[in-house]
Amino acid sequence: MINYPNGKSFHASNPPNLHSSHPTRRVDYGNRGMTLEDDLNTTNRYYREQHIALIHKKPTPLQIVNVDYPKRSAARITEAYFKKPSTTDYNGVYKGKYIDFEAKETQNKTALPLQNFHEHQIQHMQQVKEHGGIAFIIVKFSSNNEVYLLDAQFLFKFWQEQQDGGRKSIPKHTFVSNGFLIPQSYRPRIDYLKAIDQYYL
Amino acid sequence: MINYPNGKSFHASNPPNLHSSHPTRRVDYGNRGMTLEDDLNTTNRYYREQHIALIHKKPTPLQIVNVDYPKRSAARITEAYFKKPSTTDYNGVYKGKYIDFEAKETQNKTALPLQNFHEHQIQHMQQVKEHGGIAFIIVKFSSNNEVYLLDAQFLFKFWQEQQDGGRKSIPKHTFVSNGFLIPQSYRPRIDYLKAIDQYYL
Repeated sequence: MINYPNGKSFHASNPPNLHSSHPTRRVDYGNRGMTLEDDLNTTNRYYREQHIALIHKKPTPLQIVNVDYPKRSAARITEAYFKKPSTTDYNGVYKGKYIDFEAKETQNKTALPLQNFHEHQIQHMQQVKEHGGIAFIIVKFSSNNEVYLLDAQFLFKFWQEQQDGGRKSIPKHTFVSNGFLIPQSYRPRIDYLKAIDQYYL
Repeated sequence: MINYPNGKSFHASNPPNLHSSHPTRRVDYGNRGMTLEDDLNTTNRYYREQHIALIHKKPTPLQIVNVDYPKRSAARITEAYFKKPSTTDYNGVYKGKYIDFEAKETQNKTALPLQNFHEHQIQHMQQVKEHGGIAFIIVKFSSNNEVYLLDAQFLFKFWQEQQDGGRKSIPKHTFVSNGFLIPQSYRPRIDYLKAIDQYYL
């Protein structure tokens, strides 16, 4: 099976990016079966509806090759391919600050493999910081359902060390020591702006 | 012919959003044949490369219905549809400020028809301002090749008046009187950050 650029296989029955504007919303807010992306979309919708922040997931970038224009119905894309994203997935504005982050979920209990990121995304986050924005990653360790926010500077450090022949992952203890364990609840699901308030503002 | 949600027909040979990371770049920087989107992508790439600002066009949102996973080749989307965007097309960070805008091109010589926008996009730009971001539109009047930047507050005003039974367009003189005529040159093509410096910072 060929995978999606982010390393996950794609399931057409549960496509990425489509939840935020889906007309029928899930009513099961239990944790089982919810992916980190689902939880973040729900959280961002809550932030928007409560006028707390304006943060969106970007659409998945696709290379469109062919489109049909049938009469009396919507244009239909009949050939397209996934592209490697050149930016992170999420951005927006909170208390006047530019916010930018990437979210990753791992089954690994002791570390986050760096293969979850592309060089372009690292460069993008470096530029965010250069221009005065706030850049971080949100990482879910699925095995024990912990979700951490970690400033991008730590990602840059481990990325550089990997280039220099070092380890190929960020150890869990870096998240514990230098990141924030994000509180999870009913609404919002993953209240990551709490960590932003503490760490950046 | 069925049109794209933004009212323009889609040309597979010149797909939207794909220029920024296209490996073979145009060498013809003459004005003929360049769309506003092409010019803005070129401008934003210049801003990124010169470390002036970090602003990207978002990918076109698509509803993916079916994907094939052929052996030994890339996943191929065989059925997808264009979705109405719920945000604007462009955002990013400049001098620590969150920047958000929509770009439109019109053949109309005297006004910009409001049908170029969706209700969701207006609400999105209102939220940008509410959270302390900078929101505006960039409009090209193709007939005489003038490109204006106009703060989103004017769009909100005309949008509201339309709801109340008023005119269905923003008159050209509003751009002339309340907007900024953006200088065009070789590099950057459309130096809209000049207007941001003058108007917002």
